[in-house]
Amino acid sequence: MSVIGQRIGRLEDRRLLRGLGHFVDDVDRAGQLWMRVLRAPLAHARILSIKAEKALALPGVEMVLTGDDLAWVKPIPVRTRTEHPLDDFLQPVLARERVRYVGEPVAVVLADDAYLAEDAAELVEVEYEELPVVLDAREAIRSDAPQLRDEVGNEAATLSMGYGDIEEAFRNASRVIEAEFKIGRHSGVPLETRGLVAEYDRGSDHLTIWGSTKVPHFNRRVLAQLLDMPLSRISIKKTDAGGGFGVRGEFYPEDFLVPYLARKTGRPVKWIEDRAEHLIATNHSREQRHRLQAAFDNENRLLALRDEVWHDNGAYVRTHGVIVADLTLAMLPGPYRVPAYEGTAHVALTNKTPCGTFRGPGRFESTFAREHLLDVAAAELGVDRLELRRINLLDPSEIPHVRPLSTLSTDVILDAGDYGGLLDKALQHSGFEDWVEEARELRDQGRLVGTGIGYFLEKSGLGPYEEATVEVDPTGSVRVLTGGASLGQGIETVLAQIAADQLSVPPEEIEVIHTDTDLLPDGVGSWASRSTVVGGSAVMLAAKATVEKALRVAAEVLEASTEDLFLESSEVKVAGSPDKALTLGKLAEACDPQRSAAMGEEPGLGARRTFSVEHMTYPYGVHLAQVEVDPETGGVEVRRYFVAYEIGRAINPTLVEGQLIGGAAQGIGGSLFEEFRYDESGQPLASTFIDYLEPTVAEIPQVRTLICEDAPSPGNPLGLKGAGEGGAVGCGAAIAGAVEDALRTPGAITELPITPDRIRGLARRRDRPTRLGAT
Amino acid sequence: MSVIGQRIGRLEDRRLLRGLGHFVDDVDRAGQLWMRVLRAPLAHARILSIKAEKALALPGVEMVLTGDDLAWVKPIPVRTRTEHPLDDFLQPVLARERVRYVGEPVAVVLADDAYLAEDAAELVEVEYEELPVVLDAREAIRSDAPQLRDEVGNEAATLSMGYGDIEEAFRNASRVIEAEFKIGRHSGVPLETRGLVAEYDRGSDHLTIWGSTKVPHFNRRVLAQLLDMPLSRISIKKTDAGGGFGVRGEFYPEDFLVPYLARKTGRPVKWIEDRAEHLIATNHSREQRHRLQAAFDNENRLLALRDEVWHDNGAYVRTHGVIVADLTLAMLPGPYRVPAYEGTAHVALTNKTPCGTFRGPGRFESTFAREHLLDVAAAELGVDRLELRRINLLDPSEIPHVRPLSTLSTDVILDAGDYGGLLDKALQHSGFEDWVEEARELRDQGRLVGTGIGYFLEKSGLGPYEEATVEVDPTGSVRVLTGGASLGQGIETVLAQIAADQLSVPPEEIEVIHTDTDLLPDGVGSWASRSTVVGGSAVMLAAKATVEKALRVAAEVLEASTEDLFLESSEVKVAGSPDKALTLGKLAEACDPQRSAAMGEEPGLGARRTFSVEHMTYPYGVHLAQVEVDPETGGVEVRRYFVAYEIGRAINPTLVEGQLIGGAAQGIGGSLFEEFRYDESGQPLASTFIDYLEPTVAEIPQVRTLICEDAPSPGNPLGLKGAGEGGAVGCGAAIAGAVEDALRTPGAITELPITPDRIRGLARRRDRPTRLGAT
Repeated sequence: MSVIGQRIGRLEDRRLLRGLGHFVDDVDRAGQLWMRVLRAPLAHARILSIKAEKALALPGVEMVLTGDDLAWVKPIPVRTRTEHPLDDFLQPVLARERVRYVGEPVAVVLADDAYLAEDAAELVEVEYEELPVVLDAREAIRSDAPQLRDEVGNEAATLSMGYGDIEEAFRNASRVIEAEFKIGRHSGVPLETRGLVAEYDRGSDHLTIWGSTKVPHFNRRVLAQLLDMPLSRISIKKTDAGGGFGVRGEFYPEDFLVPYLARKTGRPVKWIEDRAEHLIATNHSREQRHRLQAAFDNENRLLALRDEVWHDNGAYVRTHGVIVADLTLAMLPGPYRVPAYEGTAHVALTNKTPCGTFRGPGRFESTFAREHLLDVAAAELGVDRLELRRINLLDPSEIPHVRPLSTLSTDVILDAGDYGGLLDKALQHSGFEDWVEEARELRDQGRLVGTGIGYFLEKSGLGPYEEATVEVDPTGSVRVLTGGASLGQGIETVLAQIAADQLSVPPEEIEVIHTDTDLLPDGVGSWASRSTVVGGSAVMLAAKATVEKALRVAAEVLEASTEDLFLESSEVKVAGSPDKALTLGKLAEACDPQRSAAMGEEPGLGARRTFSVEHMTYPYGVHLAQVEVDPETGGVEVRRYFVAYEIGRAINPTLVEGQLIGGAAQGIGGSLFEEFRYDESGQPLASTFIDYLEPTVAEIPQVRTLICEDAPSPGNPLGLKGAGEGGAVGCGAAIAGAVEDALRTPGAITELPITPDRIRGLARRRDRPTRLGAT
Repeated sequence: MSVIGQRIGRLEDRRLLRGLGHFVDDVDRAGQLWMRVLRAPLAHARILSIKAEKALALPGVEMVLTGDDLAWVKPIPVRTRTEHPLDDFLQPVLARERVRYVGEPVAVVLADDAYLAEDAAELVEVEYEELPVVLDAREAIRSDAPQLRDEVGNEAATLSMGYGDIEEAFRNASRVIEAEFKIGRHSGVPLETRGLVAEYDRGSDHLTIWGSTKVPHFNRRVLAQLLDMPLSRISIKKTDAGGGFGVRGEFYPEDFLVPYLARKTGRPVKWIEDRAEHLIATNHSREQRHRLQAAFDNENRLLALRDEVWHDNGAYVRTHGVIVADLTLAMLPGPYRVPAYEGTAHVALTNKTPCGTFRGPGRFESTFAREHLLDVAAAELGVDRLELRRINLLDPSEIPHVRPLSTLSTDVILDAGDYGGLLDKALQHSGFEDWVEEARELRDQGRLVGTGIGYFLEKSGLGPYEEATVEVDPTGSVRVLTGGASLGQGIETVLAQIAADQLSVPPEEIEVIHTDTDLLPDGVGSWASRSTVVGGSAVMLAAKATVEKALRVAAEVLEASTEDLFLESSEVKVAGSPDKALTLGKLAEACDPQRSAAMGEEPGLGARRTFSVEHMTYPYGVHLAQVEVDPETGGVEVRRYFVAYEIGRAINPTLVEGQLIGGAAQGIGGSLFEEFRYDESGQPLASTFIDYLEPTVAEIPQVRTLICEDAPSPGNPLGLKGAGEGGAVGCGAAIAGAVEDALRTPGAITELPITPDRIRGLARRRDRPTRLGAT
């Protein structure tokens, strides 16, 4: 039986559950200095002067550096480039002349310990001249708005895409439904904050860095450029990571500062972000306003969709460039038949923390906008919300569906699927009809219970390629090197299963190594739900090539024909000769450099392979929710939650379920609780967990899941589609729909998160106030 | 002009001369423990009890371990194996039941700092029962000698080799010359003592080790076996090394103890050998007694040679097995026509520090024995010592000369040379005739001045293979990975020159990385004068393959034919199109995994290559000395010294000269000063530099050298022969001959080192005592 598809326990948990993980804060280097970042206390201000004398006077303080000291450093470049010129909006590693958001790095302090560094940072005196702020994307792009930069304006980019004759479609429409929605600013908040340790050896001009996640090879290239160092003189080393979610692992100012200071001082430098920093320094995400129009014919068929998006990007364009807005527009039509489409997005800069990607970037937002629009349309058109979706979902006969759009530099080709079929399965497995019935009964008892649905299309498996090496050593130990990174998602387990399947070795005996630029000098990283799809395919190819080599070598050693050989239980055996067998370890021994050369082989038993893809693969699914609203407190209780997800093939269903459940928790958080709010001066109001409301186990229901493997991707050998983000992206729509259903106020929920304040406001405006309770 | 042959400055000196070297004692790991080895104070004793309570009671002492704790650990295996079974004589990592030499590890103490560990070790109470000792090899193998082990005897192995009808030759001899010589126990004493740091990550079951030199890959395999760990879970990392000379870098007890204790405690463990330890713990070498017989015909032609050797191996057989004795016998006939030969060696165990290889192992000894025998013969036969050598040196027409012997598992085939020609060149370049004349004049003035000669045959370039990888990164930086190791010999410079020559890149821009089992998982190491010969050839092949790839890729990118392309100044250029050119960096960029796959290439611009050899290559040369003896003090002043060496091709003549001069200093040391002596109870008498007399700049004259490149080796593409050891091996003969010449006492010098005591004894016995001076 193939080990693929088996629910083996996470291999990394052998380490993590025994407290033997090796997170960046576990890295200590002898003689290390601690870095503390002094951050701007104002959202918009001119820096008049910085005085470090008092800080430097503290014994044990090694150095204070300001933006003027680093004027030679280029700003942090964009990783996910588009054709938009963004150079004017990039973030410098330390602010110069002006600060543009609360939390912007202004100076760094190096000291012998973390506490001293923090104390010293408080002694650095910065004189500011406050400037007017702009905090709303739509306002920011008005000509009379306060300007973050002279001359270049606050609109970093205007994106537009579409196809079909949109004007004609709207002219011919029998009904046009309009709506405006806002998605709140929230983000990934991993259990482990960011951190970095860097060590420099002056003699060999070599930097070693711990704490990089997500895209270590890309970050190494950026650092090499910024520091003007040869690539091979920078080693990025593996650490465990307590969550990533898109925000952790991008190249931030600190990713320059820590290695640079290690090189400058010749001493190791360590920096661990504290939680208060994290909430203002690490990428925010999601904040968008959508103005939507949908044209329907008289059979409730969509003729066209139009969306104008104001994307609040905060004060700078960071490494994601404008890709979240790009994805928002490209993914908006989703799984539906949309004959004409026009999307426009204004990427606006405001005096808030810069934004980046967060689990399901552009999809959480666009799914909420589109699905909630369909809910509104269903109510206005007088058609059942499920029926409206069924009418408009692309039919299996229309798949693969080439949508005349492109995003992330790839064409959008929906590769495999039966969208209606999945909806039916989801409804059946969840018992959604019973949920609806139950909600009706409870409403009849005066309780505010409703159900909601969010159908989503996901994208995954972004290219251009991933690297993998499989190595068997003479002791028989198998090592898999991947260009992917661990963000806690279980990559070690999944890749071990894929390799084990080929090598006929128990996955427990396979060591998966990620984030080691010495061992694997190239890689693309773990983001865009690509680690299993692209990275796993590379591992499969490398493992397959390793087996082929093992058979070739065994044929030489055993003087047999490869046709008579087969691999079983880590041994190459000869059909019909049970006594003749060679373990993979013995075969690795036979692959010493000299014997390999004699056989015309490269040294060692193993192979490095690249898996390249041109197009993404598009998983899809549906979120179903049943909620109850407490009209008095404004609280929303999620009573039932279900996610169905078509992912082509599940390497380890337990891990896929974990991804879906964890994703749903974050999606529910963004739908009901989590929001980075600011006061009118641009001061963040959510800088602790008292104010930034991460849902806990008390708020998250038991999320049930259905993993479907009905539509394998044709784009990779295992038929994989990515499982990392679908758990989050449908939540906004499902929850908002369910709350509206509970309140019987179609179209009333226009903003996420649906906070108690907003619920209470809504409840007060409801048609049937008597239903709100006795008080 | 090729960079090969140029006298560029040592690249490692950019680092080392600025104090930026990274030696093992520079490695400190956060939270490390220090290890101290408690060593046996007696040469032979039974261990009755070990009590660690007092040591453990010291605050900061983490652990005390004894041999009983490590009873499960196999003894340290032999690296250079022969057919002799040696398992009974191998050294355990900690002594059990019995100690067999002063300095044998009995227990280890781990503590928070080095001083505490040393103090604590003094508190470990060991009760011994003293046993009788045996300190002389010839006595040791007598049946009534004190036995180091029950039942197996003290003769670890008896080696014999030879060819021809030896009895017949001696029967037919017109003269038989006999002599008995002793070579003193001395060894390599690198500026940097041994040391090791190991760190263990329990979560990933991974050991990282610093401080290994010479044969890191072999030592990794041994450690993996002893610890039962997968090979890939052990990383050995580069450090600089302050000298090796054969003794540093072998697998010693500490090479197990330090990593094992890091794994056991979960804390990094550091151990730095102090000088007193070094002088009793690190391999001794050289101590042999030879009983020689040479048969000559009436034209002074050698008919046969016979040698019986008693090789004092100390208390255990270490990693070199019996290879020093093996080499002694195999190399004894040297560059001469020896029609019949018989060699026998008794490898005897005594209650002294175990012996291993030291620069020119077996050759220093056999060259002294043979050449000094020729001096004795010349005197007895009444023929000029140079003439006697000329008569018997192999003629160019006899080369290649297959000598029916084998050593180091290879057949002895003297590959290329003109032995007489080199002698003539040496005499001419040195002005040896003038030295002789000058000595005669000075003797006529009553001074004791004489000249000596030591003709030597060396071996070098031992296989079986070496590995090299050349990599160009997209920034254009070139990295060479070698399976060799740095012992301070300049390997980084030499390999960079070889790569630079192929790549047309300045050698200064090439980084050579050695001793990194992660970056290069296989390698054979730096010993047996093989780094340049075998390692350099591998680098050449890898660099050549890299250039070929660069041209192929450039042809694709430039849409040109490879025939029109050429490499110049780090750029691939198109003949006739001076504007079309691509740097190696740009070509590396074009070798990203995806584009490489499209071109049918492996990712990256670079190549890994193996260079294999079946036979060694045999350099040769001559040492010439002029000395003056002070009959009163017994001191010997070396007035003039000259080494001529045929090495096929000198990559960097300055470095070859450095090797020769440094080697001569060690050879002169072993000839005149250095000796590990013991008292009758087996207590070492040379445990500090007060007693172990390393020569200083005051004792070593200006050594002049002549590098000959007349007989390139046919066994490798650059014609290289190893340069590492020839500087040492002829010294004993040249110095002894010169002293005898000064004293006019042929055959009187029978023992090295020629200490003042021995000189004074000899001077008292001289024929013409009046010449000894006025007093």
